[in-house]
Amino acid sequence: MTIAPACPLPLMQHETVQMAHGAGGRLSQTLMQRVFMPHLHNSFLDLLDDQAKLELPAGRTAFTTDTYVVSPVFFPGGNIGELAVNGTVNDLAVGGAIPLYLSTGFVLEEGFSLVALETIVMSMASAAQNAGVIIVTGDTKVVGKGQCDSIFINTSGIGTIREGVNLSCCNLKKGDCIILSGTVGDHGMAIMTSREGLSFQSHITSDCAALNGMIGKVLDAVPMIHAMRDPTRGGVAATLNELAHSSSVGIEINETSIPVKPDVRGACELLGIDPLHVANEGKLVLVVPADCSETVLNVMRAHEHGRDAVIIGSVVNDHPGMVVMRTVFGSRRIVDLPLGEQLPRIC
Amino acid sequence: MTIAPACPLPLMQHETVQMAHGAGGRLSQTLMQRVFMPHLHNSFLDLLDDQAKLELPAGRTAFTTDTYVVSPVFFPGGNIGELAVNGTVNDLAVGGAIPLYLSTGFVLEEGFSLVALETIVMSMASAAQNAGVIIVTGDTKVVGKGQCDSIFINTSGIGTIREGVNLSCCNLKKGDCIILSGTVGDHGMAIMTSREGLSFQSHITSDCAALNGMIGKVLDAVPMIHAMRDPTRGGVAATLNELAHSSSVGIEINETSIPVKPDVRGACELLGIDPLHVANEGKLVLVVPADCSETVLNVMRAHEHGRDAVIIGSVVNDHPGMVVMRTVFGSRRIVDLPLGEQLPRIC
Repeated sequence: MTIAPACPLPLMQHETVQMAHGAGGRLSQTLMQRVFMPHLHNSFLDLLDDQAKLELPAGRTAFTTDTYVVSPVFFPGGNIGELAVNGTVNDLAVGGAIPLYLSTGFVLEEGFSLVALETIVMSMASAAQNAGVIIVTGDTKVVGKGQCDSIFINTSGIGTIREGVNLSCCNLKKGDCIILSGTVGDHGMAIMTSREGLSFQSHITSDCAALNGMIGKVLDAVPMIHAMRDPTRGGVAATLNELAHSSSVGIEINETSIPVKPDVRGACELLGIDPLHVANEGKLVLVVPADCSETVLNVMRAHEHGRDAVIIGSVVNDHPGMVVMRTVFGSRRIVDLPLGEQLPRIC
Repeated sequence: MTIAPACPLPLMQHETVQMAHGAGGRLSQTLMQRVFMPHLHNSFLDLLDDQAKLELPAGRTAFTTDTYVVSPVFFPGGNIGELAVNGTVNDLAVGGAIPLYLSTGFVLEEGFSLVALETIVMSMASAAQNAGVIIVTGDTKVVGKGQCDSIFINTSGIGTIREGVNLSCCNLKKGDCIILSGTVGDHGMAIMTSREGLSFQSHITSDCAALNGMIGKVLDAVPMIHAMRDPTRGGVAATLNELAHSSSVGIEINETSIPVKPDVRGACELLGIDPLHVANEGKLVLVVPADCSETVLNVMRAHEHGRDAVIIGSVVNDHPGMVVMRTVFGSRRIVDLPLGEQLPRIC
């Protein structure tokens, strides 16, 4: 059924999500016609079937899912819509896949502004276009006022894994270089500083970005990279711990080599938060055989999302499963997983 | 990283979801070890990568998504977990696909019982096993108390479309038979009667079921079926309207041939709800060339989910895009899409 209309009624500022928008009846169709289809329509979604029918290229397929519950929904540097597209694109790309198709599942709170929803949908459309992926199937549920917080978005993604690429957290070898693509903590601290009641004199913006372009160039140049991760929840600390644990190796990093923007560092110090524990949404951790590290750095630094790429440490035989940091004072400390919840709902 | 432990701590009745369970740190790992992995672990999930790496059979691929926000979470005949698996399995199967892999994205409310969560996860594991699908990747977010209602679950699914099968809402031809697999309204009214404050003297239970087994047998026997849909939100009325609209044909149905359980009919009459507008979660609408209808009925009636299968109407050339019902009184009335929201959060 094609319901992308020739000329849907323009949205009025006061219009909001109603329970009936999620009931599968006439108002559900209206929501599709007025908010979703004008921005997302394509040959897959236009059919409005319960499933998209895809022709996948030959090869292994990567499949991933993430639900985004970020609060606030609009934050400095982005909104939940582009976060939902970029986050899932990145989860495919760090597995060595070329991201191809996304699904999207909305949970909307009754009373949420339709104009705000349209802004989010437009951001999703634009982020999908930038990342070269197509949103091929979707679902919308509405819950009563107070039964969810504004809007949650799930995106799942499918991609084709590049031939000759084998990225895995279990691949780390002694001597490998740990490369970080840029400054840490930008996304988490942008969310934090934009939350009600917290107003730093800062210009911290989220680093939310799709990394598949840069990752593609890196893998074209050096297909034998051992592992990649985007350090989101739990930050670089959680990512490095997972890598060390999965490969039963030790990781040593140098505090002085980890790039942190001054505003982010200041906000972290004020709040007593370790920047290594703060989420990023446009950064990459790579584990690379030492003799390839220069090539990888050169490719990354030539890309807008990797300009500040730097080697932050290496894989060692000592303390397997553990991450140790040489601090600015020359001492060594264990970099552990964050235990509790410092920054809820950052993605 | 394999974190399915030899012997996780047993859950205590009073334990609840904490914000830190969603933070990506140590408590996130604990939640995986104690609640998810004991029931869901498999060779894909055990890797705990950000994406699953799949070998898909050659052919077209179906991809679908649905978020489940049913309230209450436990209802007569099922819970949100098995609903989330069966619903997405059915969305693949009605497209002619063999369902293979699911993803699952949880949004949990702080304070939700861990024992209840484990029951839901166990139902998902069991439903996945029954339907022959594997849950290969997942994500868990936690939001604060009052920021969602207990638990929402997104499942997305991938399947391979059977060769020689071409099901589409645009395929309806004059003379086709409309077949319904059984009684209507069971799921929606089971939810309704179990809601707080509404207590009928009834034994209505949800029809929640995976239909891929029956659909497989039907397509083996009659691959040239024109269209299939599971009449969920908006009920049989919405499904028939979508089919009529997509194919620009009319549909005529007979009220006397539509099976409705006495308890469901009674509850619908009491609440002033048309059973044709009520959601089902284990029923199937098929559009079949007339000369194949007996074969299809025989195959369906031999299956536990199709015992009451019946022809309820046919495709006509008159009133394109419209569904007309011959009522029990012999008059004719238009069966329209439900306009508003009668039964919110039934799936």
